[in-house]
Amino acid sequence: MGKVENRLFMAELALPAVFSAPSGIEFKFDLVRVSGGLAYISGHGPIDGAKPLMQGKVGTDLTAEQGTEAARLTALSIIASLKQELGDLDRVTRWVKVLGMVNCAPGFSATPGVINGFSDLIIELWGPDRGAHARSAIGVAELPFDIPVEVEAIVEVDQEAQ
Amino acid sequence: MGKVENRLFMAELALPAVFSAPSGIEFKFDLVRVSGGLAYISGHGPIDGAKPLMQGKVGTDLTAEQGTEAARLTALSIIASLKQELGDLDRVTRWVKVLGMVNCAPGFSATPGVINGFSDLIIELWGPDRGAHARSAIGVAELPFDIPVEVEAIVEVDQEAQ
Amino acid sequence: MGKVENRLFMAELALPAVFSAPSGIEFKFDLVRVSGGLAYISGHGPIDGAKPLMQGKVGTDLTAEQGTEAARLTALSIIASLKQELGDLDRVTRWVKVLGMVNCAPGFSATPGVINGFSDLIIELWGPDRGAHARSAIGVAELPFDIPVEVEAIVEVDQEAQ
Repeated sequence: MGKVENRLFMAELALPAVFSAPSGIEFKFDLVRVSGGLAYISGHGPIDGAKPLMQGKVGTDLTAEQGTEAARLTALSIIASLKQELGDLDRVTRWVKVLGMVNCAPGFSATPGVINGFSDLIIELWGPDRGAHARSAIGVAELPFDIPVEVEAIVEVDQEAQ
Repeated sequence: MGKVENRLFMAELALPAVFSAPSGIEFKFDLVRVSGGLAYISGHGPIDGAKPLMQGKVGTDLTAEQGTEAARLTALSIIASLKQELGDLDRVTRWVKVLGMVNCAPGFSATPGVINGFSDLIIELWGPDRGAHARSAIGVAELPFDIPVEVEAIVEVDQEAQ
Repeated sequence: MGKVENRLFMAELALPAVFSAPSGIEFKFDLVRVSGGLAYISGHGPIDGAKPLMQGKVGTDLTAEQGTEAARLTALSIIASLKQELGDLDRVTRWVKVLGMVNCAPGFSATPGVINGFSDLIIELWGPDRGAHARSAIGVAELPFDIPVEVEAIVEVDQEAQ
């Protein structure tokens, strides 16, 4: 078992089913696309396979704390996609850039605290050096499936191990 | 004629005029910026030169189907910029990442279906392997010129051919 | 004194304090993350240390001109972060990609003019070749601390000089 998988295990965190299209629909994009030593990760949300685990706008339908939990669940969905794509999560040698998008109710601007739910888990699992990342945390008007949080990211991958 | 140009021709698709600033205005950005084997493509919309081909919010002013058509027209505008920048569209050897932004009316969250208008055309023209890409499809509050869709992208380019 | 620093000096532009978390809060992200010859710059706003210099929505609380000034101040905050990270601003050899986000009041779509406040200053300081960049300028629903403008960017960095 790799280091990151071991930390997931020790934290008793189970990965959700890999993000998939609802029945009768076909995704027109790849969950992860590797180019030149970087993996570009598509926007993910708090989702288990095709089933959203949380929905609604942060600030009305959901509290900031629930938004933070949604961001944490989003990290787990991304990790499930990385595991499927790369096999071994330790092949993600370094996080680079995160774009965190919050489905904000009008007037809710505490988006960094929400996206910390994502960043905290990544840093916990990969450690402060490899897990560190540049980030933006913004409020958007609408997200697919009315999910409360969506995150896309760029990570460095070890290509020798392929 | 290159492969991608040939497919455009066979599909009877004409490229619009390259995205340009309205009269009296000067763009402060490049349509395409190449760095390290990747071309970073600025946000484009359904536009012919400086003239928006569609305007308004998806969900009220425009239907989802019209939004999908706007995303398809956005792909054609990006292709026109790539052709101007690279000369030969076959120099785009691989698509990497797409950020699709929909100018959403409140409550319209079917953004993936709209951005499929973009992804479908790219995959049709470049094929399933080279055309595949990571993607996010989000709803934003406002877009320039009130266009209904804006897409920015990253692609791999063949630099040997320069 | 480097070229870019000299231009800042000649333009009588002072850099703000580096973007920092408000008292009692810890940032969960890096301001700048370097990977493979590129620096990925986190979302910044018009801010002096932890203190927003401007707040509110462009189109109601702020005019378009004030939004443009906010974008200019955002460039100075990013430059302060680059100086802290890289030591010498001339190590930024080339700008690549800018994502400009405007905190828009409903109906305000003149986002490119606002983000020109950022692009103009970068091109003034780095010159038209090194300062040129691909760009998107979009309107988002909410921004952290209710800042009017947020910009994230990717630049090429000279790693030999490290």
